[in-house]
Amino acid sequence: MQHTICALATGAGGAVALVRLSGPESCRILGELTHLSAQPEPRRQTLCTIYDGTEPLDKALVTYFKAPHSFTGEDVVEFALHASPYIKGRLLELLCAHGAVMAKRGEFSQRAFLNGKMDLVEAQGLCDLIASGNKASHKLAMDSLDGKLSARVSEIKKRLSELLAQIEVRLDDVDEEMTPLSDEFVRGEIEAVLSHIKALADTFSVGKYIKDGLKTAIVGAPNSGKSSLLNALVGFDRAIVSDQSGTTRDTVEETLEINGQKIILTDTAGIREHALDPAEKEGMRRSHRAMEAADLVLFVLDSSRPVTPEEKELWQDIRRQNKRTLIVWNKADLTAAAPDLEEAESYAAARVSCKTGEGLEALKQLITADVTEAQTADGLMISNLRHYEALLRAQTELESALIRLEAQAGGEIYAEHLRGALKYLQDLIGEVTPDDVLGIIFSKFCMGK
Amino acid sequence: MQHTICALATGAGGAVALVRLSGPESCRILGELTHLSAQPEPRRQTLCTIYDGTEPLDKALVTYFKAPHSFTGEDVVEFALHASPYIKGRLLELLCAHGAVMAKRGEFSQRAFLNGKMDLVEAQGLCDLIASGNKASHKLAMDSLDGKLSARVSEIKKRLSELLAQIEVRLDDVDEEMTPLSDEFVRGEIEAVLSHIKALADTFSVGKYIKDGLKTAIVGAPNSGKSSLLNALVGFDRAIVSDQSGTTRDTVEETLEINGQKIILTDTAGIREHALDPAEKEGMRRSHRAMEAADLVLFVLDSSRPVTPEEKELWQDIRRQNKRTLIVWNKADLTAAAPDLEEAESYAAARVSCKTGEGLEALKQLITADVTEAQTADGLMISNLRHYEALLRAQTELESALIRLEAQAGGEIYAEHLRGALKYLQDLIGEVTPDDVLGIIFSKFCMGK
Repeated sequence: MQHTICALATGAGGAVALVRLSGPESCRILGELTHLSAQPEPRRQTLCTIYDGTEPLDKALVTYFKAPHSFTGEDVVEFALHASPYIKGRLLELLCAHGAVMAKRGEFSQRAFLNGKMDLVEAQGLCDLIASGNKASHKLAMDSLDGKLSARVSEIKKRLSELLAQIEVRLDDVDEEMTPLSDEFVRGEIEAVLSHIKALADTFSVGKYIKDGLKTAIVGAPNSGKSSLLNALVGFDRAIVSDQSGTTRDTVEETLEINGQKIILTDTAGIREHALDPAEKEGMRRSHRAMEAADLVLFVLDSSRPVTPEEKELWQDIRRQNKRTLIVWNKADLTAAAPDLEEAESYAAARVSCKTGEGLEALKQLITADVTEAQTADGLMISNLRHYEALLRAQTELESALIRLEAQAGGEIYAEHLRGALKYLQDLIGEVTPDDVLGIIFSKFCMGK
Repeated sequence: MQHTICALATGAGGAVALVRLSGPESCRILGELTHLSAQPEPRRQTLCTIYDGTEPLDKALVTYFKAPHSFTGEDVVEFALHASPYIKGRLLELLCAHGAVMAKRGEFSQRAFLNGKMDLVEAQGLCDLIASGNKASHKLAMDSLDGKLSARVSEIKKRLSELLAQIEVRLDDVDEEMTPLSDEFVRGEIEAVLSHIKALADTFSVGKYIKDGLKTAIVGAPNSGKSSLLNALVGFDRAIVSDQSGTTRDTVEETLEINGQKIILTDTAGIREHALDPAEKEGMRRSHRAMEAADLVLFVLDSSRPVTPEEKELWQDIRRQNKRTLIVWNKADLTAAAPDLEEAESYAAARVSCKTGEGLEALKQLITADVTEAQTADGLMISNLRHYEALLRAQTELESALIRLEAQAGGEIYAEHLRGALKYLQDLIGEVTPDDVLGIIFSKFCMGK
């Protein structure tokens, strides 16, 4: 029999705290702590005195959710307490003394999953939703929690299953009474499934930075205005988000929100500040490292003077990184020099003045352009590495199936690859995921959920 | 008309967040955000989608409490949200966009008070309950929230009102048709009321340190084992509470829990560490300051050697402070010297060994003895300075009334003092408290309550 689990579901401080109890003993424990004998009416918030022995511990609003109509699918009791450190701690002690055990991280969600209240993609959406700090990551998580992402995967899975069923029924058909499937038909179906999977997998590059933030490296020669640009971008939005700023040994990082998107700006402070100096090498190393970790590189140039040989050299470095790159012509309020940078025309560029604020809005639009574009489509995206890997593996299996089909390897051979692809899709939504893997997935969830 | 107010009621982090909405527009705003037209069934938790325009913001458990059957006595809606920073912030923005305003600190409680859901003593109990971090302060707050303290004040008030009514009816009785009250009867009644008020006011000395912690100064010569004593006391309990330890410039403070009571231990580190040294004066100054702020002084002596002249001098200082004092004979595991300290026998003392732990339990009992005694009586105590001052003022008025009565000043005169005393008792429970004073009282409450 399942244990009855309990945990604090709300955060530290506040006026109200919520303690959750889930499992077969929930009702009995509630009765013992409130001295009420009648089974409570489901979903109705009732003001009860909770007793610690004979002494009242708190007057709390208590709600009973009858299985299976609860978050976990089990009997659930929620206590809305006065948020005193003493009351919260003592109630959890009392619940455990009456037979409950403290829930592990994500254990409520894991039970909800195991009881079929949601699939693994929806559960992940729930976890991401609670972590979401801005509009873009919120939408991503809601699509996942809402089942939109699961529905898309299920559509793909269904088309693949139907193809596989048609192949398998013919493999069993030893008397060859059925019309064989044409290779064209099989190839067409596999390619269709493959293109849907690829389209979804491709959204990961944008989805992951919607979720985790777009890492943006500001790179440029000294005095080109890198720090002014950082301050200008942060300054306008600092009041809104920046709660995660910090200084690393090598670089300055600021987290901000631009057009509802989380941006982690890295100023590679000190790069090339001491050309021809022993520190030069160190500066280049930092620059490289910041660019390597970045999703986007902002190359800052002083538009009031010609591009220097050092900047041209740095530009070659940047292009070798092969990252999404924006050229920022700074000091646009001063006289503009003619841009002179190899193949600059094939990169997006913005003219800005950190002093007057000119061009900053356009630069922000460019920074978030990828996300904005991705969102103007139907907007479904994946942002979870586990989902991405499952899709990639399914993709590899389907590509192998196509190769075998091409080589006339016979139905038994390519059917095996189709089965493999199907398994990865089932794993994605949690249909065939082993228990230990589930344990690892849910252990990353937050406490009390 | 009252504004409809909203606030986050839970703390930072967690899996679930609670947003509260209270006021006449609550139902309309709920309908607009959930796109539901039907009035929700009161007290029933219902899973609703909350919309941000046409996009879903969250799926939340929503509960409607119909006036007057709610915490504030107004229409209240509670949203149990996924605790994402984005969702919490955005919902509050949406509520305000739909006509609500952000609640001020304590504004929900203030409305509950104004709507007669609780008196001022009960409201204060609620505020204290949320802040309570240990068993003793929790009990104090529960007695206040439960109305036990209000009931006691009301009893006293009733007896005084009845006396005053008898006096006033005779003052109006110009034809002197009624039997006059005997001075004995009036004096007896005033004295009875006075003794109840004094008894309650006297609990403040213990009540305030149950609520705020017992400030305990550890004082003694160098090498008498002050720091060992601090560590021995903290060490055993550190895991349970000590989240407020800190080092001030002059002293080391540790907060711990002994017998369910909050104790703030101050080690006057450095006192007399450098006798005959310029720092000596500074050490004495610190010692004095720590003792001045203390509710209890622990004077630590090394029981394995005779009391030194410096310690005798310090002992005189301590006695001049006129504080509750315990003598701690440390190093009881070594050979015990005969205690030789003026009038030591009239102070409670403990023999301890920080090394073996011997005697520490007995010392702890002595430290919390006042609280334990106070709690073995009926346990009702006041801990709020405003309540204490109101009782003191009522007491002063009653004493003045007794003096006037003694001086045969006539009913009009002493009745005026009785009316004054009654007013202070009414003020205590909030019957006659002006709005601006209420505003100040409730502004000390926590957010969302």
